[in-house]
Amino acid sequence: MTVPNRLPRTLQEMPPTAAHFCLDVERFLREEPGLDLSGSTIVCAYSGGVDSAVLLTVLNALAPRLGCTVHAAHLDHGLRPESAAEAKHALAFCTALGVPGTARRVDVGARCPNGTGIEEAARKARYNFLTSVQAETGARFIAMGHHLNDLAEDVLMRLTRGSGWPQLGGMRCFDPERGLIRPLLMTPRADIEALARELSLPWVEDASNQDPAYQRNRMRHSLLPLFLKENPNFLQSVASLWRSSRQDREFFDAEVQKQLKTLADPTFLPRPHLTELPAALRLRLYKACLEALGPGQPLADSLNRLETAFTSGEGGKTIQFPGNKQAKVNARGIDFSIEPNAEG
Amino acid sequence: MTVPNRLPRTLQEMPPTAAHFCLDVERFLREEPGLDLSGSTIVCAYSGGVDSAVLLTVLNALAPRLGCTVHAAHLDHGLRPESAAEAKHALAFCTALGVPGTARRVDVGARCPNGTGIEEAARKARYNFLTSVQAETGARFIAMGHHLNDLAEDVLMRLTRGSGWPQLGGMRCFDPERGLIRPLLMTPRADIEALARELSLPWVEDASNQDPAYQRNRMRHSLLPLFLKENPNFLQSVASLWRSSRQDREFFDAEVQKQLKTLADPTFLPRPHLTELPAALRLRLYKACLEALGPGQPLADSLNRLETAFTSGEGGKTIQFPGNKQAKVNARGIDFSIEPNAEG
Repeated sequence: MTVPNRLPRTLQEMPPTAAHFCLDVERFLREEPGLDLSGSTIVCAYSGGVDSAVLLTVLNALAPRLGCTVHAAHLDHGLRPESAAEAKHALAFCTALGVPGTARRVDVGARCPNGTGIEEAARKARYNFLTSVQAETGARFIAMGHHLNDLAEDVLMRLTRGSGWPQLGGMRCFDPERGLIRPLLMTPRADIEALARELSLPWVEDASNQDPAYQRNRMRHSLLPLFLKENPNFLQSVASLWRSSRQDREFFDAEVQKQLKTLADPTFLPRPHLTELPAALRLRLYKACLEALGPGQPLADSLNRLETAFTSGEGGKTIQFPGNKQAKVNARGIDFSIEPNAEG
Repeated sequence: MTVPNRLPRTLQEMPPTAAHFCLDVERFLREEPGLDLSGSTIVCAYSGGVDSAVLLTVLNALAPRLGCTVHAAHLDHGLRPESAAEAKHALAFCTALGVPGTARRVDVGARCPNGTGIEEAARKARYNFLTSVQAETGARFIAMGHHLNDLAEDVLMRLTRGSGWPQLGGMRCFDPERGLIRPLLMTPRADIEALARELSLPWVEDASNQDPAYQRNRMRHSLLPLFLKENPNFLQSVASLWRSSRQDREFFDAEVQKQLKTLADPTFLPRPHLTELPAALRLRLYKACLEALGPGQPLADSLNRLETAFTSGEGGKTIQFPGNKQAKVNARGIDFSIEPNAEG
């Protein structure tokens, strides 16, 4: 896997199909997250894999059109013998594109002495690294290489674990809190690989992507192929579901914000107020009140149990939620709190 | 498979766990579809399989509490050599429960000379049979034996083919147009089989339930087990998703009805009216206008394409929908129609 001295850096240096690919990504960024990237720096997460190789190449070629600056960020997790060589490859790739880049090494294995929780520790280390490069470069955005197949896997995982709607529609293309953007989210993996081949981009394969110990890999290698066999256009179905979830999220968020504005205190929902709402809004208001207390995602099943306790008028009933949160139903309404004993 | 002379006919004749099962079904019927069944006759679809054997037994035991009358209906599709014997078994089962029943035979195979479309022809024959027994008995309702595993398969099939929300949540427990009710929809198949064993109910197995030529069987035998392996509580996740879809359906239906009332003509949506709506309601209004034209379910993907044509202001663009329907976007708004050339 040698990296050529120079890789295509502009739309003009690319064949027409590749240039069109880039313009589709630009259109997606303008239409879906509706972002104006001009004047901003984007940190591009670059693992060395095909997705991030394409992401970096495409963002770099679009940068003059978008009016932004791209900075690559590569983390060597120190988990595989070949990772140090991959970090060198990463810097060579950046040089070939003419993109500034930061490569750093952490020893994720040392943080998981008994070998458990490595996937989660690696995710955290990556996130910390990206936010530190974001701070160092004064970047507004972090771009990730998630594509349409990743989204389909994400939808299946969310379905598996019992996500409600609109969360079931999958990861967002823009997370304003962290400044995360996912420019390739509507692009099938096959198109990404085709572009990498067309532009002769070098990439490395991560063998851990085959390991069935990770749920994501079981989705990729067992479940997703079955759905694609049932419907060869399944990825397009997922894209539609995602678009619809984005619209519904916007709609429900606005409706819930309206409700929250009329409340004196988001930790207490008065019964007369709740009774007037349709159940669809009531449950989402519960969710917003719980999320205002701190981290921890309530699942649809627990929200339904709270709704049943509320509508059946079961006084004194308490429902527990992740993050040590609880909701107490009484005659006056619902009190939300963090359980004092379990805190900290 | 011999049928005893007498099977448990009342809650009093059942052991406590079985009686509780019946009371759970009663509670579901009262809470979810919110139906008052008193004074009405229910035609109970009885195939002879375990689901419908339990459904008939439970509804019969609940009839005095619900104040309704139960009538069993068995169709012999004439597709398997053993089907005539099964029809005899069905009538013996009704006699043992003390339930009046109608058994009829159609030759579904004769309607599909080359053997294709048998599943669809059988479904149609069953539906026609049930509605004719409904008419003959003056019944308001038809009860079907669909349970929580069927619902999970249905959700997976809907996900496969690209259903939008809230349709993705699966089949309804009450279809007011046809009077269909599904009293066992929140009951896992394992509980149904346990009840049948506890009450020593005899049932027949339909070998075609194993045939991977049918998509439903592929869901049952390939996909659903993989989801259950990932999450042993997957059926409860599906139940939560279903409840949430029911609430959202109610909510969106009410919002769309509000919009339709302000319109002079449901075949034309004026642009100024549409522009003011959130996208989430706009798409559901498109769907309602299309459905008002006649049968044919629009998929999420086509509705999204219509939305893109509308918001991008592409004048003169026409989007096609199932049932020969079309939507024409122009400067004034959107016209919905049935394509004259393709009609009839």
